[in-house]
Amino acid sequence: MGGDHGVGAAVRAAASVSLDRDIGVLLVGDQAEIDAELRRQRYDASYLSVHHASQAVGMCDNPRAALDAHPDASILVGARLVSEGAADALVSAGNTGASILACARHFKTLPGVPRTALAAVYPTERKRGAHHDPFALILDVGATLHCDADTLVAFAHMGSAYAARISRNPRPRVALLSNGEEANKGLPEIVAAHERLARDPHLNFVGNVEGVDLPRGKADVVVTAGFTGNVVLKMLEGISETVVDLARYAYRNKLAWRAGLWMLRGGILQLKQLTDWRQYGGAPILGFDHLFIKAHGRSSDRAIANALKVANKAVQSGLCEQIAEQLSEVGSRS
Amino acid sequence: MGGDHGVGAAVRAAASVSLDRDIGVLLVGDQAEIDAELRRQRYDASYLSVHHASQAVGMCDNPRAALDAHPDASILVGARLVSEGAADALVSAGNTGASILACARHFKTLPGVPRTALAAVYPTERKRGAHHDPFALILDVGATLHCDADTLVAFAHMGSAYAARISRNPRPRVALLSNGEEANKGLPEIVAAHERLARDPHLNFVGNVEGVDLPRGKADVVVTAGFTGNVVLKMLEGISETVVDLARYAYRNKLAWRAGLWMLRGGILQLKQLTDWRQYGGAPILGFDHLFIKAHGRSSDRAIANALKVANKAVQSGLCEQIAEQLSEVGSRS
Repeated sequence: MGGDHGVGAAVRAAASVSLDRDIGVLLVGDQAEIDAELRRQRYDASYLSVHHASQAVGMCDNPRAALDAHPDASILVGARLVSEGAADALVSAGNTGASILACARHFKTLPGVPRTALAAVYPTERKRGAHHDPFALILDVGATLHCDADTLVAFAHMGSAYAARISRNPRPRVALLSNGEEANKGLPEIVAAHERLARDPHLNFVGNVEGVDLPRGKADVVVTAGFTGNVVLKMLEGISETVVDLARYAYRNKLAWRAGLWMLRGGILQLKQLTDWRQYGGAPILGFDHLFIKAHGRSSDRAIANALKVANKAVQSGLCEQIAEQLSEVGSRS
Repeated sequence: MGGDHGVGAAVRAAASVSLDRDIGVLLVGDQAEIDAELRRQRYDASYLSVHHASQAVGMCDNPRAALDAHPDASILVGARLVSEGAADALVSAGNTGASILACARHFKTLPGVPRTALAAVYPTERKRGAHHDPFALILDVGATLHCDADTLVAFAHMGSAYAARISRNPRPRVALLSNGEEANKGLPEIVAAHERLARDPHLNFVGNVEGVDLPRGKADVVVTAGFTGNVVLKMLEGISETVVDLARYAYRNKLAWRAGLWMLRGGILQLKQLTDWRQYGGAPILGFDHLFIKAHGRSSDRAIANALKVANKAVQSGLCEQIAEQLSEVGSRS
């Protein structure tokens, strides 16, 4: 029901995915609104069903208050249906805080996971995995602002398991974000996590990375506390916007620059698609017994369809089971 | 004696500055090496003198060990001379850690300063102050990794006083870096500092900024703990390098792109100068009773000359006295 493009984008995404006859989609929300949109779409009814929810959370609502006041909110009903086995994973483009809270109310935290993490992908120079994926994963980006060493270690395993499955990258390079490459650099919890990750046989731990290494893509999975991860992710967004502003300025100010931009248009389009990355795929919440993919609020149909495919890939590959298994081994060693 | 361009760059900078007959420069280092370089330069001997120091710290030396083993190291002698009144401020392009440590050994921390800060400027979209300065100030960028609320409040005052003097910006907009704009967003120490800064009559406190606001330049002075500041600053460096790599890629790969880049060359040159910002001016250490300007290791003569001029401007305007005065008022109120 949420997202900047409303129920329409979600319904169109589900309709289009149903035609592939690969993923079954259960739409949760206002039956009348969903049906109205479905009548305008081609879809395969054997891969698409609807579960009515009479309430919804608005994009700007206070998460806790909205969930308390709306027990039949679509995001709460969706999380409950997943926890009951009616579906395997949850996808939403709605209110982020309310989504995470709804998961916390209905999903279970996996054994060995001190805190859940919100992960995000961002574009880098380096390509990785079987798909030559230009995206690296960073976690946490805001679910847990301060993290102790146990939490950072768990995040490293969760991120590695996700990247291995989604980017088809069997040994993703995992790194801790710090203020220097040396093992003794960083806040005390980072130094402690480094020491434990360095002797972890289940991870391809490449040590610390610095800010300068993030756009280069030196690591495939960057582990950091939610405060720093949030600042970093939003900064990447700000820089993309600044580049667009600069191009606009060049276009307006000189005929030669305008001509130059026109000749570079193929490259700029590639760059624009890359810097528009936040629309595609979505951000997983990791550490629960079920997967939740948070699609960006601005998501188009295509972006939501991508999020559904990412969720399917993660479920098919047994992501949550893999995280649980790795973390139980970490727990039994420490 | 340090810096990637060695003693030559420092001597050429001092020689050139002496000809303006405005700033007296005291060069500290190996007398023979300095004299050899001076013989090749034009300079005004009444504005330039040399103090011999028989030892020096290398760029990659361990700071503490190097200072302990070399009591006559040029950076230690320079800091001592400033503390004794032989000069008013210290400038170096040498080993950063050794420079900070040398200051800590010879300078006094100002009353009301819990910890000293390393500040840095970075380019933004917005211009500010009488000089239409495109640079914002961020502190701390690595001297104090974790900061409590007292320290963040002191950094806000130190940064504001510096920006007011160096950018000729009488009411610089000061902000805390956080994971949301609301006053209650962030780690506990950030929330506590926000509450105190919001009712501080000496500051133009504009609240929290997020990562997305950094390249836009929403604040003139960004206050953050050294861990996050270090990550942010190095990320800006990494992104500049990525832009250069992308342009190089475009140049190699398509004739039309090469022609487009050629037509845009004026704009790209402007951008390159801006992204080359780390070479210019230098990073001040704030909170001591004397000013230290750390010029980048890569500094050319021109960059070191700029650092000398920035140091002079700060001294002429009574920067350290102003910081001491503001912080004594903060202390007496709290």
